[in-house]
Amino acid sequence: HHITNSEQIIPFLESEHKFWLNMPNLNNIDLLNEIKNIFDLHTMAMEDIINTQERPKVEIYDHFILIVVKMLYSRNNLADLEAEQVSIVIGKNYVISFQEHAFDIFDGIRVRIENPSGKIRKHGTDYFAYTLLDAIVDEYYSLLEKVTDKIEVLEDEIISEEKRVKLSEIYNQRKSIQLLKKVIWPTRELLSTLKKSESFLIKRRTLPFINDIYEQTVEIMENLEMQRESITTLVEIYMTNISLKQNEVMKTLTIIATIFIPLTFVAGVYGMNFEYMPELKWEYGYWFTWSIFLGISILMVIYFKRKRWF
Amino acid sequence: HHITNSEQIIPFLESEHKFWLNMPNLNNIDLLNEIKNIFDLHTMAMEDIINTQERPKVEIYDHFILIVVKMLYSRNNLADLEAEQVSIVIGKNYVISFQEHAFDIFDGIRVRIENPSGKIRKHGTDYFAYTLLDAIVDEYYSLLEKVTDKIEVLEDEIISEEKRVKLSEIYNQRKSIQLLKKVIWPTRELLSTLKKSESFLIKRRTLPFINDIYEQTVEIMENLEMQRESITTLVEIYMTNISLKQNEVMKTLTIIATIFIPLTFVAGVYGMNFEYMPELKWEYGYWFTWSIFLGISILMVIYFKRKRWF
Amino acid sequence: HHITNSEQIIPFLESEHKFWLNMPNLNNIDLLNEIKNIFDLHTMAMEDIINTQERPKVEIYDHFILIVVKMLYSRNNLADLEAEQVSIVIGKNYVISFQEHAFDIFDGIRVRIENPSGKIRKHGTDYFAYTLLDAIVDEYYSLLEKVTDKIEVLEDEIISEEKRVKLSEIYNQRKSIQLLKKVIWPTRELLSTLKKSESFLIKRRTLPFINDIYEQTVEIMENLEMQRESITTLVEIYMTNISLKQNEVMKTLTIIATIFIPLTFVAGVYGMNFEYMPELKWEYGYWFTWSIFLGISILMVIYFKRKRWF
Amino acid sequence: HHITNSEQIIPFLESEHKFWLNMPNLNNIDLLNEIKNIFDLHTMAMEDIINTQERPKVEIYDHFILIVVKMLYSRNNLADLEAEQVSIVIGKNYVISFQEHAFDIFDGIRVRIENPSGKIRKHGTDYFAYTLLDAIVDEYYSLLEKVTDKIEVLEDEIISEEKRVKLSEIYNQRKSIQLLKKVIWPTRELLSTLKKSESFLIKRRTLPFINDIYEQTVEIMENLEMQRESITTLVEIYMTNISLKQNEVMKTLTIIATIFIPLTFVAGVYGMNFEYMPELKWEYGYWFTWSIFLGISILMVIYFKRKRWF
Amino acid sequence: HHITNSEQIIPFLESEHKFWLNMPNLNNIDLLNEIKNIFDLHTMAMEDIINTQERPKVEIYDHFILIVVKMLYSRNNLADLEAEQVSIVIGKNYVISFQEHAFDIFDGIRVRIENPSGKIRKHGTDYFAYTLLDAIVDEYYSLLEKVTDKIEVLEDEIISEEKRVKLSEIYNQRKSIQLLKKVIWPTRELLSTLKKSESFLIKRRTLPFINDIYEQTVEIMENLEMQRESITTLVEIYMTNISLKQNEVMKTLTIIATIFIPLTFVAGVYGMNFEYMPELKWEYGYWFTWSIFLGISILMVIYFKRKRWF
Repeated sequence: HHITNSEQIIPFLESEHKFWLNMPNLNNIDLLNEIKNIFDLHTMAMEDIINTQERPKVEIYDHFILIVVKMLYSRNNLADLEAEQVSIVIGKNYVISFQEHAFDIFDGIRVRIENPSGKIRKHGTDYFAYTLLDAIVDEYYSLLEKVTDKIEVLEDEIISEEKRVKLSEIYNQRKSIQLLKKVIWPTRELLSTLKKSESFLIKRRTLPFINDIYEQTVEIMENLEMQRESITTLVEIYMTNISLKQNEVMKTLTIIATIFIPLTFVAGVYGMNFEYMPELKWEYGYWFTWSIFLGISILMVIYFKRKRWF
Repeated sequence: HHITNSEQIIPFLESEHKFWLNMPNLNNIDLLNEIKNIFDLHTMAMEDIINTQERPKVEIYDHFILIVVKMLYSRNNLADLEAEQVSIVIGKNYVISFQEHAFDIFDGIRVRIENPSGKIRKHGTDYFAYTLLDAIVDEYYSLLEKVTDKIEVLEDEIISEEKRVKLSEIYNQRKSIQLLKKVIWPTRELLSTLKKSESFLIKRRTLPFINDIYEQTVEIMENLEMQRESITTLVEIYMTNISLKQNEVMKTLTIIATIFIPLTFVAGVYGMNFEYMPELKWEYGYWFTWSIFLGISILMVIYFKRKRWF
Repeated sequence: HHITNSEQIIPFLESEHKFWLNMPNLNNIDLLNEIKNIFDLHTMAMEDIINTQERPKVEIYDHFILIVVKMLYSRNNLADLEAEQVSIVIGKNYVISFQEHAFDIFDGIRVRIENPSGKIRKHGTDYFAYTLLDAIVDEYYSLLEKVTDKIEVLEDEIISEEKRVKLSEIYNQRKSIQLLKKVIWPTRELLSTLKKSESFLIKRRTLPFINDIYEQTVEIMENLEMQRESITTLVEIYMTNISLKQNEVMKTLTIIATIFIPLTFVAGVYGMNFEYMPELKWEYGYWFTWSIFLGISILMVIYFKRKRWF
Repeated sequence: HHITNSEQIIPFLESEHKFWLNMPNLNNIDLLNEIKNIFDLHTMAMEDIINTQERPKVEIYDHFILIVVKMLYSRNNLADLEAEQVSIVIGKNYVISFQEHAFDIFDGIRVRIENPSGKIRKHGTDYFAYTLLDAIVDEYYSLLEKVTDKIEVLEDEIISEEKRVKLSEIYNQRKSIQLLKKVIWPTRELLSTLKKSESFLIKRRTLPFINDIYEQTVEIMENLEMQRESITTLVEIYMTNISLKQNEVMKTLTIIATIFIPLTFVAGVYGMNFEYMPELKWEYGYWFTWSIFLGISILMVIYFKRKRWF
Repeated sequence: HHITNSEQIIPFLESEHKFWLNMPNLNNIDLLNEIKNIFDLHTMAMEDIINTQERPKVEIYDHFILIVVKMLYSRNNLADLEAEQVSIVIGKNYVISFQEHAFDIFDGIRVRIENPSGKIRKHGTDYFAYTLLDAIVDEYYSLLEKVTDKIEVLEDEIISEEKRVKLSEIYNQRKSIQLLKKVIWPTRELLSTLKKSESFLIKRRTLPFINDIYEQTVEIMENLEMQRESITTLVEIYMTNISLKQNEVMKTLTIIATIFIPLTFVAGVYGMNFEYMPELKWEYGYWFTWSIFLGISILMVIYFKRKRWF
């Protein structure tokens, strides 16, 4: 159903049926207040839902559980990840989800819900909340994969030295990882709390499912940590490449200068205008000078070969 | 009321009314001693209030709670943050706040208190102490935002390389973050202790509010940690930029020197004054030499192109 | 026995005999489902077995224990380690092992099992599961040794400076270590859980054996940590060597240039064509100039000797 | 009293009076043994007192408490901090302090003790031991301040670049911090143990005082950590300054060389002695060459301006 | 007694006497098996004794305690530390020690044992085991001292810059420290376990002695940590020295090149062979050119002085 008026909710609430109410945005303050009253939500809970700067957390109230999580998505590229708050209220026979902006992450669930014989219809509200959380954690996974792919591309480019990579590209990945960690760390915590909560709203048979997404967040955290180390390594390789190139530039300069500077000196000597310079009068003086030029050059080249500069 | 004499406090204390006493500075030792006696504050508590070098902490006494926190403010710019101690004593029907210097952070609360139907009047002294703490933590938030903004500006300047950033500017931000962390870390601790304290002075319904500012401090700490990492990254980019520039300077020198040093040698050779130098007599010797000049230059340029030095 | 049909399992299950069922791959979904039904495995357990992206873990169910571990092997060289999931189900009188791909790690165990008087036949299913885990942890050991050997070779090559080592070779070892750690860390955790689990399936006398492989994983982790530090050190030495070489290149250039540039200037002076240059007319002007050349060179060499540049 | 003979102690011990015995050094082994017997100190306790290599610690015995702490002082400058062991034994009606060498830290306390109406005389032995510990921790504070001051001076010198700072000066501060941390860390631990010890020798009303010095050690540790980070930052700035200077040196060389090397080449060309060089015959050839010189120079300067090398 | 046959042990075991059995090597497997049977040692315990790759650990069995530790010694120099396993079995009236190779660390104990009135004879087997452990931990101390001395020598050499230190020497110390830490860390753990073990074999009055060596291992760990930091600092100073030297080399080159390159250009100009060059005809042209040479040189020197390059 598409509900336009909060009055329409009451019969659902009083019936035996389980139902899911999705608030696609937080703009309609009046509607939110009505929901607050109908479902008897605590003032602090409502504030947590409306204030979109909250850290992911779970709050166990007497007759409902509030879960605040963050959905991450990237509008254009990985460099500008954005976080959107999704709050889930689990009650006895209802689940309410509040999205910051209308988004399509729950579309898959909507399809599954319409299947009358699906697993999702048979289980309780806790299982349904799990499917919502699962959809969000799956998003983290796909972001992790995107970041991992991007880092691998950068790694190949840096090691092969085929393309000039900008350091800022590496740092953008670092930022994405930082943001992911900042969101996933408290999510892991909240799932751990949810697992151990002894609220009557979380049934024993739902626990393995919650444990499953908990372990997924652990896995994502570990992978993020590995990627963060990879980036540190990438920066090191990047810096080493700069050093190696500088070394090569230096060597080229040194080889050329070291060979030709002495030769130029010798040429300069015989360019002097002294009246009495015996060599200038020799018949083979010029050729002799060339042999000096060649001799110096060959000695230098041998020296550099020995030093393994080539 | 503006109280000038400690005698005036006693009727308030004996009445059923809740009241707030704000000491705008710690200069009047006599007055402080009278307050100590009237409210029966412990000697160690009074010492904690007067010694402005204390770490933020909470001390649960039998008939009152002492909270020592730090207010942070920047007189001119972020580089010189200063900390001022604010001590809050929560009693049965009173709250006393001691400021190191007269400051205006509690002005907003004063306004709200004068509103006779406001939330702040209806709740107990614990809620009132919460509003004071909340005002202080809000200050931390705004400082965090200033630091974050400044770091982002620095980041843009360094990455765009448009403006020459001084390393000391980056380190000033690091210092601010360090100071913020040093103040917020024990504040978080004290709020956690307050949450778990089972003092009769903290009512159950105030706990969610204390938990709220506790979570704010956690959030601030996490953001500070992220900013600290950003600064480490900034310094790395800064250093890499220096290396890259040095590399570019080296390349320019190497290209020019490597091309012209051999040419100068050749010119030097034909500047020698040997009597017998056949090339000098050739009709096209000069033009031939120029072709050598051009040949060497072109070979060098091709070599550098291949090495991707341009 | 080589079992082709799941029907054949049932008599084993009902008998008093202990038996081991090894699934060499996870391709036959029908067979897996039949096994699930015959052994009454939980849906989540089966999902853990089929999903090869699981972290190593242990799950204690009522009538069986599920252990998920990773086998590591390197197809060609250490740089591309691959992980294959192995799941072990320990029941009252059976052990089932599921491999991702058919592999030969359990061949040694198969031989030992066929020995009718072997230790392996006398002990229970928990001991048998231990032998399987032991075979996998032994593989980790041999990988650790390979990595250690490779790092030592790299270390020798870098310190002796005989061979030009590529930085990427060092980083490949870092990656192998990272992967090993990622696999062994949760394995250690699962062994610790297994030790403390009070399941009736783990007999008291098997505990020392489990403790033994647990201590092996601790040992491997510590060695990996040491190797990781060795690599950090190697990278540092590598970078220092680049710096030292660059320093040497610089010195060579500086020595040559600093000696010959002033000499070339002197030669240039007497190559000037001024009509009135008294030195040019001197009889010993040319030899005098050579004495200047020698004098400057000797002074420079002394200067460099003092600075310990040779 | 100045006691010369151990016999003289016994009447004090048997009386109701509280007394303090200070051993200014550990040279007189016989006297120490007599004290051991008179006060019935455990052999291990006596060994801890005599062995001056002990870590700071507290040992709770049945009828006395042994506290081993370190006094830190710098003979000449901060670079050579020395640690001296001070052991304090708290008994029912006595406090014994053992100093490694005669030192004057307890002079202030001696003065206060002689004041017959002072706080120190009214409290028990535990309060007296607190005053001794307080004197020692105050010394740590003054050392922390000296180190902090020295680091700030170094920071100013490095950032202003007015004075050439030697890296070893920075590292000396690092060493002092390391030593301070090594001493204060276990001191904090021992104070924490003392707080929680339920020995009858530590009275409830002394606890806030012990807690006070405990918090001081926490504060010192936090400040040391901040100073350690400052030093890391200082080294980074130091290294960056070297890099920046090297960059400047490189630029100077490159600008001069890049301008004059091509000019010298041109001059070399017209210094060649070819018989047929048309330019040499031109009337304005010389001035034309000068215009080439100027042209090249101006182009180079523009190029460097654009690259922001000036 | 020097026992050659395991039969000879039995009367000792049955008597009331306490005895120590030292196995100087692990070569005689038959003898080890007989010992296993006589003393009723667990199979896993015997495996721990024979497998010399074990981590230091303690295992509390019903009628004996097995302690596995490592003795460290350096055959030639600190760079090649070797570890030898020593296992100690503490029983009711016996202590058995197993050495990997015959070594002389227990010689001092043997001497003390032969003294019939010594402390070592009066105490139980737990005290005797303590003396063995103490001898081993004392070895760690002396190794720590050697490493510390070597690092201080290196530090002096690097800071004074008198001797050219090889980076690999620094890293060898790092390796020694790493190995020491790897051995001492689990030793500390095992001593902690031993302290808390409530085995009847460890008497209450032996606990302070065990605690004493436990604290020694803590102290060694802390010192090792400090030495590790010293090494990091040394490497930093080493790198900085390279940078500083490179800077000096650069400066020398730049000063010489920047002074003489323009002079050489001027000389080159007047070496040109243009027919019409008015300066060449001037009577004082030559001296005027020299004044240009001097002028340029002086200006350059002033410039470098200002930049503080000298």
